Amino acid sequence: MLKDDEIKHQKNLQDTLVQILSLLKKQELVSELVRKQEMPRHDLVQNLIEKQHVNELKKRLQQLHPADVAFILESLPLDQRQMVWDLVKVEHYGAILLEVSDAVRESLIEEMEHEELLDAAEHLDSDEIADLVPDLPKDVVFELLTSLDSRNRAKVQSALSFPEGTVGALMEFEMITVRDDITLATVIRYLQRRGEIPAQTDQLFVVDRENNFKGLLPLRSLLIHDPDLPVTEMMLNEPVFFYTDGSAREAVQAFERYDLLSAPVINAHHQLVGCLTVDAVMDFINDTSQKERLNQVGLSEEEDLFASVWKSAKNRWMWLAINLLTAFVASRVIGVFENTIQQIVALATLMPIVAGIGGNTGNQTMTLIIRGLALQQINTNNFKYLFFKELAIAFLNGLLWGSVIGVVAYALYDKISIGVVMTAAMVLNLLLAALAGVLIPLILHSTGRDPAMGSSVMLTAVTDSMGFFIFLGLATIFLL
Amino acid sequence: MLKDDEIKHQKNLQDTLVQILSLLKKQELVSELVRKQEMPRHDLVQNLIEKQHVNELKKRLQQLHPADVAFILESLPLDQRQMVWDLVKVEHYGAILLEVSDAVRESLIEEMEHEELLDAAEHLDSDEIADLVPDLPKDVVFELLTSLDSRNRAKVQSALSFPEGTVGALMEFEMITVRDDITLATVIRYLQRRGEIPAQTDQLFVVDRENNFKGLLPLRSLLIHDPDLPVTEMMLNEPVFFYTDGSAREAVQAFERYDLLSAPVINAHHQLVGCLTVDAVMDFINDTSQKERLNQVGLSEEEDLFASVWKSAKNRWMWLAINLLTAFVASRVIGVFENTIQQIVALATLMPIVAGIGGNTGNQTMTLIIRGLALQQINTNNFKYLFFKELAIAFLNGLLWGSVIGVVAYALYDKISIGVVMTAAMVLNLLLAALAGVLIPLILHSTGRDPAMGSSVMLTAVTDSMGFFIFLGLATIFLL
Repeated sequence: MLKDDEIKHQKNLQDTLVQILSLLKKQELVSELVRKQEMPRHDLVQNLIEKQHVNELKKRLQQLHPADVAFILESLPLDQRQMVWDLVKVEHYGAILLEVSDAVRESLIEEMEHEELLDAAEHLDSDEIADLVPDLPKDVVFELLTSLDSRNRAKVQSALSFPEGTVGALMEFEMITVRDDITLATVIRYLQRRGEIPAQTDQLFVVDRENNFKGLLPLRSLLIHDPDLPVTEMMLNEPVFFYTDGSAREAVQAFERYDLLSAPVINAHHQLVGCLTVDAVMDFINDTSQKERLNQVGLSEEEDLFASVWKSAKNRWMWLAINLLTAFVASRVIGVFENTIQQIVALATLMPIVAGIGGNTGNQTMTLIIRGLALQQINTNNFKYLFFKELAIAFLNGLLWGSVIGVVAYALYDKISIGVVMTAAMVLNLLLAALAGVLIPLILHSTGRDPAMGSSVMLTAVTDSMGFFIFLGLATIFLL
Repeated sequence: MLKDDEIKHQKNLQDTLVQILSLLKKQELVSELVRKQEMPRHDLVQNLIEKQHVNELKKRLQQLHPADVAFILESLPLDQRQMVWDLVKVEHYGAILLEVSDAVRESLIEEMEHEELLDAAEHLDSDEIADLVPDLPKDVVFELLTSLDSRNRAKVQSALSFPEGTVGALMEFEMITVRDDITLATVIRYLQRRGEIPAQTDQLFVVDRENNFKGLLPLRSLLIHDPDLPVTEMMLNEPVFFYTDGSAREAVQAFERYDLLSAPVINAHHQLVGCLTVDAVMDFINDTSQKERLNQVGLSEEEDLFASVWKSAKNRWMWLAINLLTAFVASRVIGVFENTIQQIVALATLMPIVAGIGGNTGNQTMTLIIRGLALQQINTNNFKYLFFKELAIAFLNGLLWGSVIGVVAYALYDKISIGVVMTAAMVLNLLLAALAGVLIPLILHSTGRDPAMGSSVMLTAVTDSMGFFIFLGLATIFLL
């Protein structure tokens, strides 16, 4: 299916997409013509033209890598997406469904027949089936599981049993294992009999009679060492390995740090269960960073760029509601000082500056702390140092830039007292922002939550409300 | 150097760090005692204790992978960092300098002697030297380059000639090449004579007599195929390859999409120049996503968690200045309506709601568009659709949530007109936010800039200023 010259360069793919889009356009045009003329005497010719386009499209789609077809599907509005999907061969359905984003997968599966789904799953490995199961209708899952032989069914069920975020949920079952009581020559003969070695294989997994994990045998050592040596002598017997219930995040860090291509995954009894590959790790990194970016602005990862307006609008409600709530609280804080504002209306123009700068500098501190936590660089030993460092920076910058804006406020309203209140409010709100910027992610982290999740909303809620309170409060005390 | 059981699990590393920190603490205590007593009669014993700790630390550091030492250095305050660095063996300096973050590398190199730097570079490959060069003092670079033989000097210079963000800047020179006019058996004999195959090697690079790139020979095919077959018959002759001046981002996408482990890099004459490995790609992904996250809040990637207060404070000035400027503009917009606020002070309490919600929903739209651009899913064909979709969502949500907050405003101030103005302002500002959320990244993108860079500041500047303007403007027209 993968024709290599088709994928030489991303640029080509962009071209392919444009070509497919133009084919689709022509095709639409043709169907429109056909529809408008209600199939009069031109019908035969039109039909022919239409078929030609369909064939051309079909041919192109078949030449593409499943990941490329997935990309094209993701870039198409719903109706065209369905049109292209119908032209894909059923035996490629499974591989493509695994490559598309969650939201697009859902939209495709929704439109698929029961039978098509079963056919699609037929061409997949058990760990891949497990990846699809959460998105499949229940009756399809039931039928699918009963159609598998008991060994594969057990594998699917075991893969499903690992919660998201564990190594078990990321690992594959496909790998080449060899026994520890043979020689390299026997291994090579075994590989030759086997005939094919999967493309991403860099090493073999060595186990004993009871499937206990013993070590790794790199393919390259089979090439350069004496074939009469026993496997035990050439294998790496203390490699990096992971437990099925280990954290996927930590496994990813190990892959990055030690430049691994694959690694064994074992269970609590030290038996080999599966393997983790660098492909799966890269996919995980990608998914996680995209999810985080979307979560940061209150979007679930599920939003499909081409989902309906209604569906997309609803997807943003939660966030809107939360923001309305925090904005309302800040607004009520101002409400308390209406009397003060009535007397000095300049305060209304200056107060958003104090609140805004607080939010922005707090976000800087918070981003550094979240990064430090993710890289595991922050611990009880250096926490105090970092805490006071951030407060010192906030004080310094509050004094400096608070003075600048204080002078500007004085120049605008010709009242020194307004300038002084402005400067004092800036210093205090920046200190508060640093405090919140350090504490919010740390508290989230220590309660076992993702320190990035929702932290920005909380921080802004604090710096807005308190920024207004500090500024208007100081003004009420010193200016009235 | 890499002792595998040391790195079995990240958890171990955390423990090691804690142990090293406690060792450092004890060590500090000892030095303090020594200092305080000004080396009286206990000096011998104290000295012994101190030496023991140092030896213990040294031993531990030697057992660690360079990436782990880098992690420990990054997690230590400046003085302790220097202490640990001094205990690292000079021959490991180079490998560790390559692993630490830019900011930490700078801080370490600053304190190193001329000679130490030259020694550190001695143990590195030419592409690794090229990675270090930008951070080295000029005279060291000069001396370093003259100390290399002409072939390696040419390699370093060629690696330095590729601008950041190109495939050339990411690639390595170390790879195994074989000629296309030999048999598999000859290749295997060559590998056996060579003796060692680098750990991350999954395939050999096939070239002709003129070093023109011909194809790839996976190590696994050497194991399972008849050794008498010619290389040309077993090699993959239409693989994914990259040009030295190609975009690193696109190369990364190709690695993700096609699950590559390594790929050839060629020059304009189709000659093999180097190879790109999945390790380098993972590092690039990591660096880029960290850089983006920090840039988003106006931090340069250079900020070291343990840099001095003064250095860190300065690092945040640019952003503070920009934010002060946009906040000042928004404040001046409010200033225009001081007269209106004077008459209806409730407006001052309500106006931050309109501005805030606009900023937040605009950021949602913008995040989706930036993601779509990064994934290359947005093109001239679907742009119009997405544009109107986002406007429709903004209108729908503005009407819905604007009504909610309108009713609340009415309930608070008992004036229907205030509620109506609030709703109208919400709808208009959300439409404006959607407009800005789509257009800002697209304009940045079409001028060849990173669509994420600074987009959030611009968006908030628009939604704040215009939010205040729309709300207070409508109020002035309809409420006075």
